[in-house]
Amino acid sequence: MNEPAEKTGQLNQVSLLGLGAMGSVLASTLLGAGLSVTVWNRTPGRATALVAQGARAVDPVREAVAASPVVVACLFDHASVQETLGPVAEELRGRTLVNVTTTTPNESRALASWAAEHGIDYLDGAIMAVPAMIGSRDGQIFYSGSRAAYDALLPTFDLWAPSEFHGADAGRAALVDLAMLSGMYQMFAGFFHGAAMAASAGMSASEFAARQAPFLSAMTHELAALAKVVDDGDYTVPGQQSLEFSDLSHLVRASEEEGVDPAPVAAVQTLISREIAAGHGSEGFARIYAGLRAGAATAAATTNEGDPA
Amino acid sequence: MNEPAEKTGQLNQVSLLGLGAMGSVLASTLLGAGLSVTVWNRTPGRATALVAQGARAVDPVREAVAASPVVVACLFDHASVQETLGPVAEELRGRTLVNVTTTTPNESRALASWAAEHGIDYLDGAIMAVPAMIGSRDGQIFYSGSRAAYDALLPTFDLWAPSEFHGADAGRAALVDLAMLSGMYQMFAGFFHGAAMAASAGMSASEFAARQAPFLSAMTHELAALAKVVDDGDYTVPGQQSLEFSDLSHLVRASEEEGVDPAPVAAVQTLISREIAAGHGSEGFARIYAGLRAGAATAAATTNEGDPA
Ligand SMILES: NC(=O)c1ccc[n+]([C@@H]2O[C@H](COP(=O)([O-])OP(=O)(O)OC[C@H]3O[C@@H](n4cnc5c(N)ncnc54)[C@H](OP(=O)(O)O)[C@@H]3O)[C@@H](O)[C@H]2O)c1
Ligand SMILES: NC(=O)c1ccc[n+]([C@@H]2O[C@H](COP(=O)([O-])OP(=O)(O)OC[C@H]3O[C@@H](n4cnc5c(N)ncnc54)[C@H](OP(=O)(O)O)[C@@H]3O)[C@@H](O)[C@H]2O)c1
Repeated sequence: MNEPAEKTGQLNQVSLLGLGAMGSVLASTLLGAGLSVTVWNRTPGRATALVAQGARAVDPVREAVAASPVVVACLFDHASVQETLGPVAEELRGRTLVNVTTTTPNESRALASWAAEHGIDYLDGAIMAVPAMIGSRDGQIFYSGSRAAYDALLPTFDLWAPSEFHGADAGRAALVDLAMLSGMYQMFAGFFHGAAMAASAGMSASEFAARQAPFLSAMTHELAALAKVVDDGDYTVPGQQSLEFSDLSHLVRASEEEGVDPAPVAAVQTLISREIAAGHGSEGFARIYAGLRAGAATAAATTNEGDPA
Repeated sequence: MNEPAEKTGQLNQVSLLGLGAMGSVLASTLLGAGLSVTVWNRTPGRATALVAQGARAVDPVREAVAASPVVVACLFDHASVQETLGPVAEELRGRTLVNVTTTTPNESRALASWAAEHGIDYLDGAIMAVPAMIGSRDGQIFYSGSRAAYDALLPTFDLWAPSEFHGADAGRAALVDLAMLSGMYQMFAGFFHGAAMAASAGMSASEFAARQAPFLSAMTHELAALAKVVDDGDYTVPGQQSLEFSDLSHLVRASEEEGVDPAPVAAVQTLISREIAAGHGSEGFARIYAGLRAGAATAAATTNEGDPA
């Protein structure tokens, strides 16, 4: 962030592909810090504000790639990255490709393999932020893949958001990102389900949110204790809330009785009753983690085959 | 709480039925405030500490009911309340019954009807607290049913926890309680699912919790805005995250690829894809609330029939 240009060398020259809501802000942040930024977008006309800020807009994508040692892709999805970069693989040889487009872990791994075949230094990024958070300390970006690229570019990445490196397996940044989002979307779905039930009690969603938000926020303090049980692997340690106590059959039934679709909470109850049926009812609620992981050991062994991370 | 005994009259005489983890703490808190407490428990021998604190332990339950104008039941479930109180309905006539046993809304309504038939003033309570929170300001207790009983007993209830009255429909306290718990259990399940995915990235559950807890806590600040969209009923207002953007197909796929059971997040994705399939993809994510409520209007009309609240 405060590195003089001579120290970061040519790394202050960045080409940014994709000027959507996120790509535009990433480019503009680099320009604001005095970097030399070349931009490209499939549909012309989205670079006007960036050009006014000092960016060089070029076309076709081949020219954008040739302009800088570091190429950042912020496109729509995996398919758009393949479509855009496939034809310019040879121009990318010897350069660093930082792909912050949202992809699944296996898609990121596929891109890393493709990059390795073409002598491209590949770093995958997963953005845990909305565009408004870029340039602040609020969001976070996870990276995985080339450690050398991460280390060299850290001063640049610091301009965007705090970051974490998650290892040489290029799929890991996406995996941690999806893991974080999984918790968020399930919390939101739980809130909507609760609000739908509270509506039957004559309560508005806003009245419910005023009670639910501080309650859920307080309950996040329980996660560390639940995680410790998981890491220690002993679901019989005393002081835990048991699976039997956590049985949500009455909640599912009440939801049905109020005419509210119980599907999201019924999915949780299915995990709970599966463990109870397997004879673990007196063990801790955290045991549903083990149920979710069953089968993952084999899958991980396959996926990470030959992974040096 | 600071009411002199002569002002609260006979209401400083309370009989407490059920001396489990919760009932014992409720009794002990009343004793600590100088109330006259009679206790009963199905299995003898659980009253020793309370008797040392000044409680009068009696048997059978008939004698406990006869001892006070206010009877609090803190038993296991609906069936245990029916079993315990069914035979002493006539002794309860003219008294106030406060049932804080966890029941579904319809079970609470059934008890309220039974109480009305026997001239018993019925108030239903739902405890949003663990025993350790009783007597502090941390938990909360929701009540519904007899407003007169709630108003008269508020000084007593304040000894236990902050409270809210949710109307004359005895089922509403339980309904709001279940709505709150629905959000909590889904958040916990989401955390376990995320932790199971992060484990495939070599991250311990504790490392994941250290990232997930502050993230989820921050995301609870979004609930008010989502609730406003729900209350305004217009899922097309600009500035919302769209359902298409919220599509979790890639998350479900990645979970499968890592060998982690995608069931809880797949349940959320089912709600999202149902709305997208119905042509609402460009509308806000909050629209899944409407999907969950579909059918609830009819159910509520049936349930609250003749409800004066
Ligand atoms: N916005 C956020 O809050 C956020 C947060 C975290 C991660 N992300 C990720 O960041 C990436 C970009 O998001 P965004 O918000 O900037 O999306 P956006 O506003 O929809 O922009 C999409 C960009 O991708 C380009 N594109 C789409 N299909 C293409 C194709 N086949 N070939 C070449 N270019 C193509 C678009 O070009 P045209 O102008 O030609 O359509 C546009 O530049 C996504 O992967 C997203 O998941 C976004
Ligand atoms: N503990 C909490 O964190 C918590 C939080 C919120 C709400 N609650 C609710 O409060 C209620 C009591 O919970 P708790 O934690 O005190 O449970 P607990 O420790 O398991 O105690 C259960 C009590 O119910 C009695 N009981 C069970 N079946 C009975 C029957 N058929 N007839 C008569 N008595 C019977 C037990 O008597 P015996 O001694 O004879 O078995 C015992 O007194 C439950 O509805 C629970 O859901 C508890």
